[in-house]
Amino acid sequence: MPHIDLPAQVPGIRSLVMFRPDTGKHLYEWAQVLLRGGDSPLSEAERELIAAFVSNRNACTFCMSSHAAAARYLYKDDAQTVDFVLNDYQQAPISEKMKALLTIAGKVQADARQVSADDVAFAHAQGATDRDIHDTVLIAATFCMFNRYVDGLATITPPAEDLDTWNVMGERMATVGYVPPK
Amino acid sequence: MPHIDLPAQVPGIRSLVMFRPDTGKHLYEWAQVLLRGGDSPLSEAERELIAAFVSNRNACTFCMSSHAAAARYLYKDDAQTVDFVLNDYQQAPISEKMKALLTIAGKVQADARQVSADDVAFAHAQGATDRDIHDTVLIAATFCMFNRYVDGLATITPPAEDLDTWNVMGERMATVGYVPPK
Repeated sequence: MPHIDLPAQVPGIRSLVMFRPDTGKHLYEWAQVLLRGGDSPLSEAERELIAAFVSNRNACTFCMSSHAAAARYLYKDDAQTVDFVLNDYQQAPISEKMKALLTIAGKVQADARQVSADDVAFAHAQGATDRDIHDTVLIAATFCMFNRYVDGLATITPPAEDLDTWNVMGERMATVGYVPPK
Repeated sequence: MPHIDLPAQVPGIRSLVMFRPDTGKHLYEWAQVLLRGGDSPLSEAERELIAAFVSNRNACTFCMSSHAAAARYLYKDDAQTVDFVLNDYQQAPISEKMKALLTIAGKVQADARQVSADDVAFAHAQGATDRDIHDTVLIAATFCMFNRYVDGLATITPPAEDLDTWNVMGERMATVGYVPPK
């Protein structure tokens, strides 16, 4: 049960946006520019993958399940890339550059001060640009916010195994983007 | 030295906003609505105090020092409220309601899933409303983002003991608010 009096039956971030629409509007706009904004060198699929990866490390079921579903939709994920990454990203069928970026994202999640010059040099050596690294750190940091907002107020979360629910949500996130609830 | 090629000599978040202005604009607008927006039941001083408290727990010198300076300015801090809180908030000269909210903020910083129904009931018993609790969680979560963004890219940070620098920054944050650099 949520810790505060939120709209009944509404899950996760949407219930919080309905509780305080002025901040909610900004948070949806933020997700849209960060995860859909046109000029990132990271694809929408890669950005959603970083979001799901960090949310998984924070054990935030709502954000992990929804952004993993969006990433699966965007990857057209026959190869189960997303599930590989969540389970063991070093063995996943993704580029070495993406693995280096996920290493940085993982450090940002745990303790951002631990991102080292070596981590960044290694990512550069795999072809990552400063913008790739910047956007990775910013997405990882942002999901440390969303995860805490959703879980700190104990918002309603459908079961992780209810994939039909998450797939509907993921498809909407992938095709419509981040539009605040009315 | 920053991990990526940021504008020289520009400290902390401002260098990142200059590196990627489209996201930077949103982040400044976000800080403004969250920390200065008119309808929060928490005063501007209280909101800056929560920001400094969480940044201190994340050992983010840039955000801790700048938001502590803003809070000192707003508290007109002869009684050194802010330093008391950063050192030992349970003994600080603040309301029992504020102590209960800082307990929640501390849990959001460490692991938001640990905020308990008892923590929330205790805060309610000290006079906190649902909006107080909501805004506390959202500010705490937000600084888990800003702290990671600033430290994950190793932005330039003046020494914590250089109080003259932080006081100038804090006064500007308190009086001008959050306006992105040109």
